[in-house]
Amino acid sequence: MTAPVLPALSTAPANGVARRNARVAVLGASGYSGQEFVRLSIAHDGIAVGALVSREHAGRPAAELMPGLDSRLAKLPDPVQPQALPALFEEGAFDTLVACLPHGAFRAFAAEHADWLARVPRVVDLSQDHRDGVEGYVYGLPEAFRDSLAGASRIANPGCYPTAATLALLPALELGWLAGTACITALSGVSGAGRKAALGTSFVELDGGAAIYRAGEVHAHVPEMTRNFARLSSRPTAVSFVPQLAPMARGILLTAMSPLARPLAPEDAHAAYAHRYRDETFVRVLPPGSWPETRAVKNSNRCDLAVTTVHGGRTLLATTAIDNLVKGAAGQAIQNLNLLLGWPEGWGLPVHGSPW
Amino acid sequence: MTAPVLPALSTAPANGVARRNARVAVLGASGYSGQEFVRLSIAHDGIAVGALVSREHAGRPAAELMPGLDSRLAKLPDPVQPQALPALFEEGAFDTLVACLPHGAFRAFAAEHADWLARVPRVVDLSQDHRDGVEGYVYGLPEAFRDSLAGASRIANPGCYPTAATLALLPALELGWLAGTACITALSGVSGAGRKAALGTSFVELDGGAAIYRAGEVHAHVPEMTRNFARLSSRPTAVSFVPQLAPMARGILLTAMSPLARPLAPEDAHAAYAHRYRDETFVRVLPPGSWPETRAVKNSNRCDLAVTTVHGGRTLLATTAIDNLVKGAAGQAIQNLNLLLGWPEGWGLPVHGSPW
Amino acid sequence: MTAPVLPALSTAPANGVARRNARVAVLGASGYSGQEFVRLSIAHDGIAVGALVSREHAGRPAAELMPGLDSRLAKLPDPVQPQALPALFEEGAFDTLVACLPHGAFRAFAAEHADWLARVPRVVDLSQDHRDGVEGYVYGLPEAFRDSLAGASRIANPGCYPTAATLALLPALELGWLAGTACITALSGVSGAGRKAALGTSFVELDGGAAIYRAGEVHAHVPEMTRNFARLSSRPTAVSFVPQLAPMARGILLTAMSPLARPLAPEDAHAAYAHRYRDETFVRVLPPGSWPETRAVKNSNRCDLAVTTVHGGRTLLATTAIDNLVKGAAGQAIQNLNLLLGWPEGWGLPVHGSPW
Amino acid sequence: MTAPVLPALSTAPANGVARRNARVAVLGASGYSGQEFVRLSIAHDGIAVGALVSREHAGRPAAELMPGLDSRLAKLPDPVQPQALPALFEEGAFDTLVACLPHGAFRAFAAEHADWLARVPRVVDLSQDHRDGVEGYVYGLPEAFRDSLAGASRIANPGCYPTAATLALLPALELGWLAGTACITALSGVSGAGRKAALGTSFVELDGGAAIYRAGEVHAHVPEMTRNFARLSSRPTAVSFVPQLAPMARGILLTAMSPLARPLAPEDAHAAYAHRYRDETFVRVLPPGSWPETRAVKNSNRCDLAVTTVHGGRTLLATTAIDNLVKGAAGQAIQNLNLLLGWPEGWGLPVHGSPW
Repeated sequence: MTAPVLPALSTAPANGVARRNARVAVLGASGYSGQEFVRLSIAHDGIAVGALVSREHAGRPAAELMPGLDSRLAKLPDPVQPQALPALFEEGAFDTLVACLPHGAFRAFAAEHADWLARVPRVVDLSQDHRDGVEGYVYGLPEAFRDSLAGASRIANPGCYPTAATLALLPALELGWLAGTACITALSGVSGAGRKAALGTSFVELDGGAAIYRAGEVHAHVPEMTRNFARLSSRPTAVSFVPQLAPMARGILLTAMSPLARPLAPEDAHAAYAHRYRDETFVRVLPPGSWPETRAVKNSNRCDLAVTTVHGGRTLLATTAIDNLVKGAAGQAIQNLNLLLGWPEGWGLPVHGSPW
Repeated sequence: MTAPVLPALSTAPANGVARRNARVAVLGASGYSGQEFVRLSIAHDGIAVGALVSREHAGRPAAELMPGLDSRLAKLPDPVQPQALPALFEEGAFDTLVACLPHGAFRAFAAEHADWLARVPRVVDLSQDHRDGVEGYVYGLPEAFRDSLAGASRIANPGCYPTAATLALLPALELGWLAGTACITALSGVSGAGRKAALGTSFVELDGGAAIYRAGEVHAHVPEMTRNFARLSSRPTAVSFVPQLAPMARGILLTAMSPLARPLAPEDAHAAYAHRYRDETFVRVLPPGSWPETRAVKNSNRCDLAVTTVHGGRTLLATTAIDNLVKGAAGQAIQNLNLLLGWPEGWGLPVHGSPW
Repeated sequence: MTAPVLPALSTAPANGVARRNARVAVLGASGYSGQEFVRLSIAHDGIAVGALVSREHAGRPAAELMPGLDSRLAKLPDPVQPQALPALFEEGAFDTLVACLPHGAFRAFAAEHADWLARVPRVVDLSQDHRDGVEGYVYGLPEAFRDSLAGASRIANPGCYPTAATLALLPALELGWLAGTACITALSGVSGAGRKAALGTSFVELDGGAAIYRAGEVHAHVPEMTRNFARLSSRPTAVSFVPQLAPMARGILLTAMSPLARPLAPEDAHAAYAHRYRDETFVRVLPPGSWPETRAVKNSNRCDLAVTTVHGGRTLLATTAIDNLVKGAAGQAIQNLNLLLGWPEGWGLPVHGSPW
Repeated sequence: MTAPVLPALSTAPANGVARRNARVAVLGASGYSGQEFVRLSIAHDGIAVGALVSREHAGRPAAELMPGLDSRLAKLPDPVQPQALPALFEEGAFDTLVACLPHGAFRAFAAEHADWLARVPRVVDLSQDHRDGVEGYVYGLPEAFRDSLAGASRIANPGCYPTAATLALLPALELGWLAGTACITALSGVSGAGRKAALGTSFVELDGGAAIYRAGEVHAHVPEMTRNFARLSSRPTAVSFVPQLAPMARGILLTAMSPLARPLAPEDAHAAYAHRYRDETFVRVLPPGSWPETRAVKNSNRCDLAVTTVHGGRTLLATTAIDNLVKGAAGQAIQNLNLLLGWPEGWGLPVHGSPW
């Protein structure tokens, strides 16, 4: 009897791929998505972190940048200021730039550093600055738009809410099921608000309660959702969105409901979704009667999904759970990098969640 | 200059009302709603707790029943078994029964004890056993159906989710705005699952994550919502409901979206809601652009509400926050008792939340 | 049979005391202790809040200052800048000043405003600025030093850790039991760190973990403890202190261990403590085998205490739990105010905790 | 310029060691330490999980046993009943037994199954049943007693509190510094209480508060600490212990204070500790002025430690943080297995913590 093998990470490439082949500079390394990218890179044999950029931490030891890291064992490069990047690039310290800056900041950085940046072979931007496809950036949601990534060298990494929303409605949109409006509610862990000193995200203000914020059509992620839905369906889809903050560090739990153009049985909705996602490593369609929870995907790059119809088959109900820092940010960035570099798409990415 | 007066509780009756006039027996005193009822009664000068019934705690000191209570100062009656109730009633220990049993249990109790129970002047049932109006019970959601409570002696206290959902849609239903379907999502604190030993509600299983459960049309509260909506509108309303468990002890945050029969401007929706609720102590319509949070209503009997329209005025978006143990259970029971007894409706009920 | 009466608050004074007799200005009303003071004042019939001072909130509605407060019902005065205080005092808006400023700030304020401040009848300072007895301030820990408060008009309100530590060791110190050193560890909720925008107290940084900080003899509260211990015992007591931050909003749980000058049986330690505290409303000595928990005293002004001896009776082990914002700050301030004004010491103060 | 390499796990053995060489049966696979063992094994190339035993889950799919695991990718064996183990052993499904049963249960199991169990090459018991060295079991705390593990085939894995306490005092004990008593306080995450349905560990009962339990000399871990201290020092050490439950899932934060036989400068204490632990991968002595936090070691096998002296050098103050499920349970079990099998001690074990 052969004992089963349990992969923690999806498969590595066949022999012949050089270890630590991609040398990455992380711009904005002190934020949550920057730190998560470094953390995941440690377990990815193809990626070496060659430079860390943090205005606040430049000049201080790398260990202070990342709580939990044991600097006796992890030899991180010392954090530097943004202006040190060009020289490091010329020295060959890195060939790939992963930008984890707040919205607006990378666009400003790129304008200022256009020259050498043009020569960087690969750039992945985790902010929303290039998600509308400007300046040659390709929107990096592989499960929806994998073909468009072939040969790309500039990736706009999707937002966390739009990732969860697009995966929730993708098969229905492709099949032309929806009658043109989508009502989306979601709750997010607090890391989604970024890593900064702010009374509004302090422990005492948030522990033990939940809040709605910027509901309706005003959230910055609504145009990104609308754009994705328009690419996936010939019929325009109006989106209303109600984001909520829950007292937890990570995770997004999203519910989308939309009137259907034609009544649909719950089992037919489920079957179509299961078929569409049958080959996707990072999307798991749950059996009927099961519903997503954020713990099951915590620290993993997976999206758990449940789908049915209600109101006598006239309304679609689809729900998803992702880890906002992994599939919603740094993990998806690595998935995109794997594709850019011709590596197995899931290399180095955790597929199992760690619920507690 | 006169210093302002800050009422913690809404106004007490004019002189002449005897203190501790209602003598209450609490059936199921060890659950969360039972304990909350006792806790709120301590601050209500009209209510005296005359008997506590708890199968598990009968025979043990009352102090063990309620963590936090200082038994040196609070003279609670010793918990007794259910079968001790008839004798206590005959002795005059109580004249009002508040039943905080799990669903199904009070109906069974009532069948067994029909004789003396018929002579108890007032009964409030917090379970869902009598919410369909059987056996002379009147559904006790004062803001929606206050008139029906006049002269009642048997109250079916509403569920927490239906309270939040009905208050969210009430003005729209009364005005005939809705096109017949409602998509409702809500998140609840863990106390909504009751007080019992269960792996599924243990700390490690729930901390740091959120989950959807029994979504669609299967949750036990869906028929109660449908029934309320039908009373408030001549047009039948189909309800889909997605409840979620968030890692917090208390609070419900609910979002309802429904297509509108006729397009409606956001400001008109807000104005109609503000008008409808203008005299309600326990419903606060937030100004446009503000959204509810559970912390603001924590430990209070208040419902915070925000309303607008989206999709070019074709979809109503209404959201509410309540404390599931107060306005969603024990507080509303006291509000109903106040009405039964001809007292000021808000007597003894906290109107301010304690956010941390 | 008479139904028992359950006091939520300790007893009010006999008739004849004017309602809202003390008109209080709260300086630093946006911090956690300032807000807690206002919240508790709402339930205290002797106190009227006549002025609120907050640099940040001056000019904005009072409702924004206190989340949870329903401004339809609570008529709070509008927050003003500190420089507005003298004029308000002259107008009679207040006669009592409660200073809830960060450490150092009230001393600076007092130096600048010495003239009119000298004419304010009563001042309570919640910071540590006057705890060493300077400028006529009397240290306000009633259970330890009640006699010294008679006739005082200036109170230095104790720190939260020193309150918990002093109540833990008070009987042993008075009886001369301790051999001269005390090892104290404590854990505190995050509100103890104050209300400010800081990465170190943000939700994501603190949720799910605990940390030691400023351990040894360097914490600012060590001199205050040492001073208290010296007043209570003729023998000098050296203090080492290990404070810890736990992922909760409120509460202090403290453990003190000290070698005993002479071996002592556990039951003798317990008996002496029970005797010393027998008349104290706000200190409850738990029965042997029971241990304190912060939930039991949450939102109350009570201190729960357990005591025994270990190491063959050679080491005293005493543990306490308080709510850092109530008995550790705003509640104790009201207890001190009650004493200053000749009112019942516990008037308006919650004695029961609300555990969830 | 060579980009640095960041090891997530400590080094793997040189080529030649067969992958998945140890085939492990996990007895008690549904508890927290059992699940953590399986989770860590997935990332350990030397270990294959060959059998899972769980009374409750036998007959149900493995996926239900471990929330978060994606059964499409992880081929876990189906859970079986304990009585199925002998046959599986004969078939060669496993050669190593890791027992994660509650205290008392494995001793009973071993008595019943003495025959075939005697032929199992390697057994690691995570309960306290064999920690007193009975029946050939060797106590597996490598940093303290590494030599005694050579050639062992039966390991008693240490308790979480004794691991943290022994590592905190080990150098001081070996050097004969302590005067014979130790005052130890610690706080633990809730997973330390085991995985079971119990009201006392339910979310609502524990969220937002902390509690002391079984303090003094009565906790089951006190004899284990005393035994360890006696092995490390010729002078007997009396232990008092105050365990506390904090509202977090994982982590132990421990403080030990002990009178010193001779005064010692803080820097000398620190230097001696740093020297003693200089070659230990899993113990990190923090620089003076830094203190441990549980987040820094979360999900890692590391112990962070700080040490100083107080009271004029007359009292030692040593503090440690570990993850109770890793270094305090499953991680240490793998560390012991690595030693039994002659593998690098840290193979497959995470050295970096993941703080959020």
